[in-house]
Amino acid sequence: MTSKLTSRQGRRGPPAPDVAGNGLMDRRALLGRGVVFASAMSAGVGGSLTGAAAEPLPVDPWSLAPGSIIPAYGQPAKYESKVVRTLTDPKGEPRTQQARTPHQLLNGTITPNGLHYVVSRTGFPDIDPDKHRLVIHGLVKRPLSFSLDALARYPMVSRISFVECGGNSAPLFSKDPVQADVQAIHGLLSCSEWTGVRLSTLLEETGIDPKAKWFLAEGADGPSMNRSVPLTKAMDDAIVALYQNGERVAPSNGYPMRLLVPGYEGNMNVKWLHRIKLIESPVMAINETMQYTILRPDGKSWQFYFPMEVKSFITHPSPGLTLNGPGFYEISGLAYSGNGRISKVKVSADGGQSWGDAALQEPVLSKALTRFRMPWRWDGQPAVLQSRAWDEAGNIQPTRAELFAERGQPKTTPPVVAFPQTHMNYITSWAIDAKGEAKHVYA
Amino acid sequence: MTSKLTSRQGRRGPPAPDVAGNGLMDRRALLGRGVVFASAMSAGVGGSLTGAAAEPLPVDPWSLAPGSIIPAYGQPAKYESKVVRTLTDPKGEPRTQQARTPHQLLNGTITPNGLHYVVSRTGFPDIDPDKHRLVIHGLVKRPLSFSLDALARYPMVSRISFVECGGNSAPLFSKDPVQADVQAIHGLLSCSEWTGVRLSTLLEETGIDPKAKWFLAEGADGPSMNRSVPLTKAMDDAIVALYQNGERVAPSNGYPMRLLVPGYEGNMNVKWLHRIKLIESPVMAINETMQYTILRPDGKSWQFYFPMEVKSFITHPSPGLTLNGPGFYEISGLAYSGNGRISKVKVSADGGQSWGDAALQEPVLSKALTRFRMPWRWDGQPAVLQSRAWDEAGNIQPTRAELFAERGQPKTTPPVVAFPQTHMNYITSWAIDAKGEAKHVYA
Repeated sequence: MTSKLTSRQGRRGPPAPDVAGNGLMDRRALLGRGVVFASAMSAGVGGSLTGAAAEPLPVDPWSLAPGSIIPAYGQPAKYESKVVRTLTDPKGEPRTQQARTPHQLLNGTITPNGLHYVVSRTGFPDIDPDKHRLVIHGLVKRPLSFSLDALARYPMVSRISFVECGGNSAPLFSKDPVQADVQAIHGLLSCSEWTGVRLSTLLEETGIDPKAKWFLAEGADGPSMNRSVPLTKAMDDAIVALYQNGERVAPSNGYPMRLLVPGYEGNMNVKWLHRIKLIESPVMAINETMQYTILRPDGKSWQFYFPMEVKSFITHPSPGLTLNGPGFYEISGLAYSGNGRISKVKVSADGGQSWGDAALQEPVLSKALTRFRMPWRWDGQPAVLQSRAWDEAGNIQPTRAELFAERGQPKTTPPVVAFPQTHMNYITSWAIDAKGEAKHVYA
Repeated sequence: MTSKLTSRQGRRGPPAPDVAGNGLMDRRALLGRGVVFASAMSAGVGGSLTGAAAEPLPVDPWSLAPGSIIPAYGQPAKYESKVVRTLTDPKGEPRTQQARTPHQLLNGTITPNGLHYVVSRTGFPDIDPDKHRLVIHGLVKRPLSFSLDALARYPMVSRISFVECGGNSAPLFSKDPVQADVQAIHGLLSCSEWTGVRLSTLLEETGIDPKAKWFLAEGADGPSMNRSVPLTKAMDDAIVALYQNGERVAPSNGYPMRLLVPGYEGNMNVKWLHRIKLIESPVMAINETMQYTILRPDGKSWQFYFPMEVKSFITHPSPGLTLNGPGFYEISGLAYSGNGRISKVKVSADGGQSWGDAALQEPVLSKALTRFRMPWRWDGQPAVLQSRAWDEAGNIQPTRAELFAERGQPKTTPPVVAFPQTHMNYITSWAIDAKGEAKHVYA
């Protein structure tokens, strides 16, 4: 394959070879010539305090005056007013509200609290933290009621963890590709540093009746959102989370506390956590029977199937982010698995004909978002970008054909009804056309 | 030492031994009896959907009505209105503004963008990102001007990194202990996930004149804040940061871009980054001559001494967080080093007579905040809490006596003038009195 980088051979040796078709480059590849992206300056540029004479740069008005007062609690720049969650029910009509994270406009792996996704049956309750209690009861030796002050007495742990709605990526169930952006397709997913008390620590306090095999987590919101969770998860890594990215959990994410069951369906991470009842068997709540089950082709359902499967998608480029002419780009996206660490992400620029290994941004943490990056030299011709993830448990993100072979062929057309279909994790494809525009396709 | 935990021996075997004096416990220690922190409930507690009859818990009003509409960009709960930065110049008078992070009210390691510390000579400028440019000039082969769109073309990296003002903890220079909280003493310190383009990547584009040994980073703010940085740092881990905790850099932290020189004095992480000039030697800017130098007892100064030294302090308990009676508490705090990873944190509850190893929250990242935790059984008597950190480079956080033996004895009394004294990292001591109140002491 001819490389546009040969002009730099004299400076740095031969260019790194491509690692896969249609321009996927080795991560050590040199970039194209700088003038592609940046503007050349005259030699005398500067005008800094240190004395260069010429000043081709205009002096901007904001450099000529005092700035604004630093606020007690900062807000994003006014120029970023489009970097917000999209709302499915902005008027608060009596139905489920969804707020989606704009991953195509973010970078890194942490989601700011203001942009964390939300699915809620009736918005968010206004809970007075001094009056709120967490009660642990049922098959325990000693039922206990914990105030926020009481919880603050216990040892805490922090972990960076993603939370993903079981119904995220539901548009991929459509028979025809939904024309939408990353936010609309994959936006029910976010990642925070959560801090709180291990549920196992609190159960050490209450004691556990040996008959207990599950627990029911119940919220203090109007609908008393509830889910049954195996007790093994409580003894493994479940947390009663009090802090989200350093500060108290956000109001729409469970203030003053939520259950965190890392890697499990978002819905099980019960917000506004109010009661935990130890029980012998699941209660068959609406969110584990009518919803959050997977209807199989044979008419039976997969139920109580909790970890979100290994998945990845490309955020840059993606629909709405138009490429500005041929040349170098970084393909970048997010990968994650409810079953552990991401072990590998491969990227294709030719619709899956050839694949190259993406770089994984360290630290790669269990059940957290992992940012992957892959250098790409776009030749200006149509291309189809895909990513595919592997986790340390040996799971592989399926192709569309593989997923539907197991789950039955899709029958829906947009707008898509998400339920009862959940756990959608097949490879997403973005077609880049000659104008540099990205479009959702099936490939 | 007599343990209050012996009553649980029959249940779980003997209690874990104490690891140091005055109640410091092994991290695997069992807690005290639950009734100390939580309230016992009657057997019939519940009233959940699953059918328990008795309901001693009141049904709170927020559980009886629909909630509020999820907003496009969320804000912290109204009950957390005290969790804000403290401002030294809330009216924007023409002097330096400082905004301090309330670490005593946070947990984990990530600082939300709204609470990241700020030191600014004139507040924050209102920069139009479409018009802003980063110019790299001076001893380069080809001066270049980068728009935000141009920078978006380059490969990016993400890293979690602390930024600390060189003058943080200046109150510790006082001859007598300043009566203040963590925020007032150590609040010029924060930690974010930063994402951007390696400066070395951009310098590959401009080329480097072999005469260049330093670079001058200059801001677009009114005072053209500038600092000289060794070119070796540019080739090591310096980043032109565009994103902070996933979203665009906060306005008061450099929007639309800042220099990140991990581990170096906060002041060198030039905000509103506008120009980088490659130079032969430092320019002797005000912030590297009059300020951010260390005056030694012999009248000479340490200058160009950039990494922030290994340091730790206890956030919980600390002044303002009163202990609620004897029993178990978790001692927790933050440790960090500009020279790499934290390798060890020790905690004392008896003013440094004996020390126990604290647990370090994983992942322990280089030049990032590390949360440490230590179980403690307070006997209700006066105690003095201290923490001491070690880094992987072999540096040890000094005692007060060690620091002043090297730096000359303190002469100031509150209020303290921070400059020219910076890089203050000795062990902080909190005295707990019999009422459970914490007070800053020298011990």
